[in-house]
Amino acid sequence: MSVTIGDLANALQAEAWGDLSLCVTGAGEPAQVDPVGPQGGLIAMAMAPKYAEALKPGSIAILAVGMDPAAYGLRAAIFAPRPRLVMAGLTRAFDKGPQVQPGIHPSAVIDPSAVIGENAAIGPLVVIGPNVRIGRNARIASHVSIGRDSVIGDDALLHPGVRVAHEVRAGDRLILQPNASIGGDGFSFVTPEESGIEEIRRTLGTRDGITQQHWTRIHSLGGVEIGDDVEVGANTSIDRGTIRATRIGSGSKIDSLVQIGHNVIIGEDCLICGMAGIAGSARIGNRVVLAGRVGVNDNIEIGDDVIAGGASKIFTRVPAGRVVLGNPAVKMETQMEIQKAMRRLPRIAQQLSKLQETVTRLLEKG
Amino acid sequence: MSVTIGDLANALQAEAWGDLSLCVTGAGEPAQVDPVGPQGGLIAMAMAPKYAEALKPGSIAILAVGMDPAAYGLRAAIFAPRPRLVMAGLTRAFDKGPQVQPGIHPSAVIDPSAVIGENAAIGPLVVIGPNVRIGRNARIASHVSIGRDSVIGDDALLHPGVRVAHEVRAGDRLILQPNASIGGDGFSFVTPEESGIEEIRRTLGTRDGITQQHWTRIHSLGGVEIGDDVEVGANTSIDRGTIRATRIGSGSKIDSLVQIGHNVIIGEDCLICGMAGIAGSARIGNRVVLAGRVGVNDNIEIGDDVIAGGASKIFTRVPAGRVVLGNPAVKMETQMEIQKAMRRLPRIAQQLSKLQETVTRLLEKG
Amino acid sequence: MSVTIGDLANALQAEAWGDLSLCVTGAGEPAQVDPVGPQGGLIAMAMAPKYAEALKPGSIAILAVGMDPAAYGLRAAIFAPRPRLVMAGLTRAFDKGPQVQPGIHPSAVIDPSAVIGENAAIGPLVVIGPNVRIGRNARIASHVSIGRDSVIGDDALLHPGVRVAHEVRAGDRLILQPNASIGGDGFSFVTPEESGIEEIRRTLGTRDGITQQHWTRIHSLGGVEIGDDVEVGANTSIDRGTIRATRIGSGSKIDSLVQIGHNVIIGEDCLICGMAGIAGSARIGNRVVLAGRVGVNDNIEIGDDVIAGGASKIFTRVPAGRVVLGNPAVKMETQMEIQKAMRRLPRIAQQLSKLQETVTRLLEKG
Repeated sequence: MSVTIGDLANALQAEAWGDLSLCVTGAGEPAQVDPVGPQGGLIAMAMAPKYAEALKPGSIAILAVGMDPAAYGLRAAIFAPRPRLVMAGLTRAFDKGPQVQPGIHPSAVIDPSAVIGENAAIGPLVVIGPNVRIGRNARIASHVSIGRDSVIGDDALLHPGVRVAHEVRAGDRLILQPNASIGGDGFSFVTPEESGIEEIRRTLGTRDGITQQHWTRIHSLGGVEIGDDVEVGANTSIDRGTIRATRIGSGSKIDSLVQIGHNVIIGEDCLICGMAGIAGSARIGNRVVLAGRVGVNDNIEIGDDVIAGGASKIFTRVPAGRVVLGNPAVKMETQMEIQKAMRRLPRIAQQLSKLQETVTRLLEKG
Repeated sequence: MSVTIGDLANALQAEAWGDLSLCVTGAGEPAQVDPVGPQGGLIAMAMAPKYAEALKPGSIAILAVGMDPAAYGLRAAIFAPRPRLVMAGLTRAFDKGPQVQPGIHPSAVIDPSAVIGENAAIGPLVVIGPNVRIGRNARIASHVSIGRDSVIGDDALLHPGVRVAHEVRAGDRLILQPNASIGGDGFSFVTPEESGIEEIRRTLGTRDGITQQHWTRIHSLGGVEIGDDVEVGANTSIDRGTIRATRIGSGSKIDSLVQIGHNVIIGEDCLICGMAGIAGSARIGNRVVLAGRVGVNDNIEIGDDVIAGGASKIFTRVPAGRVVLGNPAVKMETQMEIQKAMRRLPRIAQQLSKLQETVTRLLEKG
Repeated sequence: MSVTIGDLANALQAEAWGDLSLCVTGAGEPAQVDPVGPQGGLIAMAMAPKYAEALKPGSIAILAVGMDPAAYGLRAAIFAPRPRLVMAGLTRAFDKGPQVQPGIHPSAVIDPSAVIGENAAIGPLVVIGPNVRIGRNARIASHVSIGRDSVIGDDALLHPGVRVAHEVRAGDRLILQPNASIGGDGFSFVTPEESGIEEIRRTLGTRDGITQQHWTRIHSLGGVEIGDDVEVGANTSIDRGTIRATRIGSGSKIDSLVQIGHNVIIGEDCLICGMAGIAGSARIGNRVVLAGRVGVNDNIEIGDDVIAGGASKIFTRVPAGRVVLGNPAVKMETQMEIQKAMRRLPRIAQQLSKLQETVTRLLEKG
């Protein structure tokens, strides 16, 4: 794969400088990138002066607007008005992906009632169940399983080992990373009599008597509904709903090792970072960002545009637009103050003792 | 699948009202459920007045005891004395599951020494190792692997991509959700000389000198022993033991993305919720409930009937029957007070400074 | 598998006592171990007096130095100067592992351009892509997939269901536990305009106006580079880098359900325990120990020999050699003091109110 500096700049909607006919074969960090040769070369990502120090004369680079390519001895450069956005365009241009071979691999086990879209590529040892529909240009890598009555939209990319259970419906451009599981059963049990958990929710922690109890399973009849342009990370699990489907809105991105419980509803354009977990029946608005390892309690509502900082644990409803942090999560400013006071806490305790003594002496004197 | 209202009420041991001959084909939320047609229809789950508002006249529903089906224009109804328990019966009745085809799929790779129980269904691309025994009516879905000398009981359901390593013994009615791993090696290493971790456990945080150290592996010879009626969630990992087996008691349910370390012993009828983690050699009693993301330190003991609230981190032994919360976990009431005080903490700090000034002035005056 | 007490003691570099010609067939806990029979027997792990209580006369055992084998009626014993180190040698001697059959299973799908090392064992239903190189004596268990252009070193053991994506390069003696995913795409997105996350990082929590925003994907061109003697746990995910590879240094061990983000660099001989997570572009030094469920923020640096206690959340840079604990993580001693003061916090709040009253009265009197 190779493209000229000029064409790449056009594709990135960015300005270029120098010899626009030089060929770009990929991207690299400045220290990895050698001077461009007769067949072209890597383009260095040097979008800040500190990264640019490692640039070699004779190479080609992406610089921030305002940096001087001549000063680094470059032969050509592209200026990035918003570096990470340029990174998006550039990496897309050079991503060869996992390369699923075109056509249907003979080792795949496909139910005759399944409908495979035009130009879809089905890798080795894939299993596709009855009445499944796979969209056009979908790429289904090795060892994927897709259960009965599920639908995968156009242009999907399912990486190796992905599990899509039965009755899962996904839109277009779905990306599922390796070993992700979509549509496992919800974790939902009930005891014939009141359980200990129900008791302490009622009594806030007190337990009258403890009796033996077995768990009876509530089965999951609902599936999972996934919008367009959704991505789900490696080894993440999204459970199916009980009566209706668990839902992930269009444009939402979910990282690795995330847990999405049964009946959860996630809005559009959310970012759910690594190891976050959303318990059963929680409702997440649009454009919500949950940073790494954020936990959301079951049955609560998180409003649109909420941002939750790393490792926050959200136990109660959060109104739209709020930025929260901490365990239990509170407004970010409040948490910052709490943390500052907590670091001072051993000193506060000391000062209080001292003050008590002083006042005692004052009282004795008085 | 279809059943009459009358038969369904009988199966649920619940009372019914209206035309008991109407056919139920499944369950849905009130808003999804249309009036019942000539072939029957979905039954609406409307077990509280707020859910019942969306009921359409002419439909059939499950109501709480005391609600009036005529007021909603229903044609038939079933009364749920304990709604979630009725949900359990109802969803079980209509769950078609992943539908593993009867018999052994020709693409499965089964060692000739393995014994497959009567009426067991083995899906495509399953791998079963030497001396494995699979119980009667077991359903093993696609892409499952079961290692040498392992035993799976009767009526098991193993979802796609499940890994059961060698020397794992499980009882009857086992359910393993997609991509769960049972019997990976324990995470157990030792250094020839004292390691930094051992040092700081001894010195409580001080380090004298730091030396290079390589980790030597302790292998895991123990397997995993699982009782009857156990369920394990998607992408969960249960490690094998070092010398003896890791053990999961009968009736215990484990959610998705949970980690169970080597040598752990879990009692009966426990509920281990999503993203909980139990470190090596911890011992968990019977009927223990660990809410989402609870962590249990290695080598400690959690007594019977303990309940740990969401995201608690348990560093030390918990006596039987206690309800704990927080990081580090303490009694729930104590944690509630700590949290209340923590929210007041910035104010406490302010009040203390002010009081110090006042006392200083008093002293100067005095 | 069977070895004499004498040979086993030699292999463990430990001293032995009693009848050195007795045969050891495996290891067990004292209560499991019966008197040694004519074919030999299990050796009991009784490396502390409290474990030794369960020893049966006539059996064989490993004891701590200084314990008296005659007092327990043993027929032979081995003395362990450092018990866990002896455990390492002993368990290695008796670990039969998952037993991948020699040779290449006929159901494996191997690209003709792949190079399989001498004596490597490739299990059933394995998929190996173009230009992959597998080292000598490697054991690749069932259902593993290895993507194009990846390299696995000599003596590797890949357990069932492991995913190795394209362009992953691993050294010798690699161990990957079941369903681990190496080389999924990084979680990296950008919005055309400033996103809410960028805004609150700038404003520390305040949001001026909220606008709709879609996420544009940054693709991951970098692979993963793994040194020698690395182990990765079950259902763990290690993401590939953006421009250059994510790197794991030689001798580092990673537990189950761990997340390693894109571009992360981990040094040598680290121990990353279960459910730990390291966010994108963080740099971890050599010999770092992250206990269970530790979180490391993106883009920060953790110095050599840092030890982070269980469930610590590290938001900022940690200098070499420091021992940290808590959320947010601070020096371990500081955290201990904070926790002590926190437990006293409700009392502190009370004492402060009382003191305020006293001083008010004093002022009134004055």
